[in-house]
Amino acid sequence: MKKQAIGIFDSGLGGLTILQAVRHTLPHEDLIYFGDSANVPYGSKSKQTVTRFSLDIARFLEEQGVKLIIVACNTASALALTQLRKQCHVPVLGVLEPGALKAAQTTRNGKVAVLGTEATVKSEAYPKAILKYRPRTNIIQQACALFVPLVEENWANTPATRLVAQTYLAPVIRHRCDTVILGCTHYPVLKKVIADILGPKVQLVDSAETLAQAAQEFLYTHHQQATTGRGKLTVYASDDPARFKRLASCLLADDIGTVRLKKLNA
Amino acid sequence: MKKQAIGIFDSGLGGLTILQAVRHTLPHEDLIYFGDSANVPYGSKSKQTVTRFSLDIARFLEEQGVKLIIVACNTASALALTQLRKQCHVPVLGVLEPGALKAAQTTRNGKVAVLGTEATVKSEAYPKAILKYRPRTNIIQQACALFVPLVEENWANTPATRLVAQTYLAPVIRHRCDTVILGCTHYPVLKKVIADILGPKVQLVDSAETLAQAAQEFLYTHHQQATTGRGKLTVYASDDPARFKRLASCLLADDIGTVRLKKLNA
Repeated sequence: MKKQAIGIFDSGLGGLTILQAVRHTLPHEDLIYFGDSANVPYGSKSKQTVTRFSLDIARFLEEQGVKLIIVACNTASALALTQLRKQCHVPVLGVLEPGALKAAQTTRNGKVAVLGTEATVKSEAYPKAILKYRPRTNIIQQACALFVPLVEENWANTPATRLVAQTYLAPVIRHRCDTVILGCTHYPVLKKVIADILGPKVQLVDSAETLAQAAQEFLYTHHQQATTGRGKLTVYASDDPARFKRLASCLLADDIGTVRLKKLNA
Repeated sequence: MKKQAIGIFDSGLGGLTILQAVRHTLPHEDLIYFGDSANVPYGSKSKQTVTRFSLDIARFLEEQGVKLIIVACNTASALALTQLRKQCHVPVLGVLEPGALKAAQTTRNGKVAVLGTEATVKSEAYPKAILKYRPRTNIIQQACALFVPLVEENWANTPATRLVAQTYLAPVIRHRCDTVILGCTHYPVLKKVIADILGPKVQLVDSAETLAQAAQEFLYTHHQQATTGRGKLTVYASDDPARFKRLASCLLADDIGTVRLKKLNA
């Protein structure tokens, strides 16, 4: 039987942090990554529009014969997961559930903060998921619209980013949250500045590793895990593959190989 | 004969500053504004993709029977104007030419700076246009990727915005430019902080008024100007009309009436 790949998608570059964790945890799997650079960002758009974009990508990944789809985008996980699961013929894993579970397991004082895009925060998907795992958790949410452009501008370590982060994190400090979910795949790039501001007692939850472990568990349970050979990576972007490759290399400090152009709905 | 409207479009909200100028200059004209909030922003996307988005919108405006299309988006003007003029059956005015002309007429020391999105800067459209009107102008360009999200986050008057602006404007000060083009329709919202940093001797070129005058001139010359009645405004957005209306009201400090949802290519 031909080895089937895992499909991973994100609105753009952020999901590459998840791709990296999946590659590390599942080195034998073939991976197909789709970055929707023509429609990025998702975080300021409506449920209906994000769902439409996500279904188009999932359809394309299914055409490539994937055995599993990983939604490596918090906004798409928060807004489109139900529809994706309804309409896809293969299983779909979102980035949100593993992050919510990890936060529920991590907090000691029961005060959790969720940092995310405007759409993720508005969806209330994180609070709902956390409360499922740990009822009576005290949850605050903070939309951080400037974090994505700051990361994409490669400004992670600038005074401007520090100032923006201080503004966004003020309520987190005021509420004495001991656990903070980095609820957008771009935010791990800002881990250092966020940790600096919050101090060493606050735990940051980055869902990339937890999600990779969930994928491994899923494949193992369903006897679909590839166990030999080095996995192949194929990367598609819906706009400007050269720019995508350049920014991806900066973000990952790693070469992701050729990036192919694939327009959906064109 | 039925009164024909003027169509105006932008990737999102920025073009509303131009809408406002056109309404003021041409109070009798019916206006149809289209904000492409499903695909915003254009500034980080390729020529091919921005052209595709622009042509879809122009086709929709033509179906509404407009007599003139105004491209109230610097990126679309820089990247898609030639194709728009080729494929549209009505005349198309871009925001870029009037701004370039005004800058060429304004500068005294012949040193002009262009602030714009990554795509506008990369296109070299402003330098080409300025040199046409004023050969041997010394032009520098600066991509300001964070200005749009700062405006959309409603952070115009914050220390973070000041810090970001200082970083972007350092080369403009170093080169002693006496004229600076605000080459993105969002940037006039940051006029005060930019003017503060550059000082009173530097002239800021905001193309909204110049473009409105160009539209007036065009209609007058072609005997298409509406001269009676109060013009009607119709606003469409390609995603989340409620959010669009809310942000538009903040940006303009004015009510734009009902915003209708119109998805293109859905």
